[in-house]
Amino acid sequence: MVNRQFVLARRPAGMPQESDLRIVETPVPSPRDGEVLLRALYLSVDPYMRGRMNAARSYAPPVEIGEVMVGGAVARVVESKNPAWQPGDIVNLMMGWQEYAVSSGDGLRRIDPAIAPVSTALGVLGMPGLTAYFGLLEVCGVNAGETVVVSAAAGAVGSVVGQIARIKGCRAVGIAGGPEKCNYIVKELGFDAAIDYKNESVPDGLRKHCPKGVNVYFDNVGGQILDDVLAQLARGARVVICGAISQYNSTTGIRGPSNYLSLLINSARMEGFVVFNYLSRYGEAAREMAGWMMAGKLKSREDIVEGFETFPDTLLKLFRGENFGKLMIKVG
Amino acid sequence: MVNRQFVLARRPAGMPQESDLRIVETPVPSPRDGEVLLRALYLSVDPYMRGRMNAARSYAPPVEIGEVMVGGAVARVVESKNPAWQPGDIVNLMMGWQEYAVSSGDGLRRIDPAIAPVSTALGVLGMPGLTAYFGLLEVCGVNAGETVVVSAAAGAVGSVVGQIARIKGCRAVGIAGGPEKCNYIVKELGFDAAIDYKNESVPDGLRKHCPKGVNVYFDNVGGQILDDVLAQLARGARVVICGAISQYNSTTGIRGPSNYLSLLINSARMEGFVVFNYLSRYGEAAREMAGWMMAGKLKSREDIVEGFETFPDTLLKLFRGENFGKLMIKVG
Repeated sequence: MVNRQFVLARRPAGMPQESDLRIVETPVPSPRDGEVLLRALYLSVDPYMRGRMNAARSYAPPVEIGEVMVGGAVARVVESKNPAWQPGDIVNLMMGWQEYAVSSGDGLRRIDPAIAPVSTALGVLGMPGLTAYFGLLEVCGVNAGETVVVSAAAGAVGSVVGQIARIKGCRAVGIAGGPEKCNYIVKELGFDAAIDYKNESVPDGLRKHCPKGVNVYFDNVGGQILDDVLAQLARGARVVICGAISQYNSTTGIRGPSNYLSLLINSARMEGFVVFNYLSRYGEAAREMAGWMMAGKLKSREDIVEGFETFPDTLLKLFRGENFGKLMIKVG
Repeated sequence: MVNRQFVLARRPAGMPQESDLRIVETPVPSPRDGEVLLRALYLSVDPYMRGRMNAARSYAPPVEIGEVMVGGAVARVVESKNPAWQPGDIVNLMMGWQEYAVSSGDGLRRIDPAIAPVSTALGVLGMPGLTAYFGLLEVCGVNAGETVVVSAAAGAVGSVVGQIARIKGCRAVGIAGGPEKCNYIVKELGFDAAIDYKNESVPDGLRKHCPKGVNVYFDNVGGQILDDVLAQLARGARVVICGAISQYNSTTGIRGPSNYLSLLINSARMEGFVVFNYLSRYGEAAREMAGWMMAGKLKSREDIVEGFETFPDTLLKLFRGENFGKLMIKVG
């Protein structure tokens, strides 16, 4: 039996090219004593992947040329030589871009299909949802009545940020691209307002929808939008730097926020984090979020592309902002 | 009797020109009931003054054209119609750029000449020293054994930051311009190391003197040095944005820190503040610092220029980095 894998063929310069990744076929590995064999059901497509394709060490080492690309997955146990796991069990893990993998069981998170569709373990109840939860509630901290602005607001992280802000009694203002996404976050997700950065002035939108200034900004994009929000901070504001998707494919270097002295003027702070800092609390957070989902307070949307072989193209779809909801690939 | 004042004649474009300020002569005002008449002894020359010459509102409103320039002073009570104050009392206040002023007594801080030379009320025991104290101990927080880096390290704020870092058991590394200042902060003030940004590579110096990375960076300068330090942050680092003197006279806009994603990679934060946030605790802090001075743990140096009329030129000296120690003018 054949295991297909995507390996890094070459480090991208700017926007990744299809030829930066290469599909290879290897035999499906056999589990040894204590191991399980997993088959991917859903593979997650996330912005952080771009950084791992670079040579520079970030919070994690880069993927080496010829190595299987990193990535999270929901998988099914197909064979088990580990008494803790049975065939048919559904798990979430960092599996890499391949159809099959063996695991010792370390790092497997058990998924209960009774709670929600298993694909949500890659989105609202997985890494993006946990990123929203800990970034908003632990890194920023929010108080009822504050105004929370989030960019990439229709995305996997941003959509959860705005909904948790509402659950906590905050005003939620989302920045997203295009009327469809803006309509969705207000009408479907209950954001108080949306700013369509493709068709509106973001500074004007912020002044209109955040008349008392921005208390919390959850930044997924960097670039001009970060500067626009910095110019509208309220005193004591908190900015969380979760990502900077506008900058990941830059070939002219990262653009720094020229309005950073707004931090000084407003006694505000800007803080970065990675969700792995909160690993020991994933279970607690996921249970609380599952409760909100069941109560109808937390909704999610997935953008599911069919076919393992579509990975390079699907990754580009992400960087073009063409996905609508948590982007993932369903493995045939 | 004549009161000389410096008023803002014109908003500077870039580096201030002498003609942006104008000296005017007015009669010395007479105190009414409840007021005191003050005569300036020392007038403080500080980086923040540049921002107040711009039209844009910062944490404080701008000085209007024709208004007396803002500034802190040490002054003597020369006439009193307020029972709380006697002729001969020495006070610290925001007096503005003038030789005489009347005051209701609000905002006057009494200075005890027995504790230290009264000029220290503009430096180590005044606004710059308090800025160092609260910025380092309250905004950043430091733990013994951490590495603290400070820019403009021979200046009024930076020199105190490094010495308090040492008092708290930290490693203190200063960035300053020229061998004289670097020698001073190490030999006289007890910094562990100095980096001469005018004659050395700052990144190389940081790698050498901060082998475990930078835990705390106290930034007074912005620009390239901020980016250099961001590239060397340790996990969980705190960056305090106190000022950005390299940018205040820019005619091409503020340069944002392009390495800001180091905050994300290192779960670090960058926070701005103004010392006025801690007004209610000035007395407590000044007493603790006076104790350190008397114990020989906290030293200071002043750069005193003679003559009220030298203000425009002395302000330029500050922005050229030519002062060595807390810059002030002694009024003749």
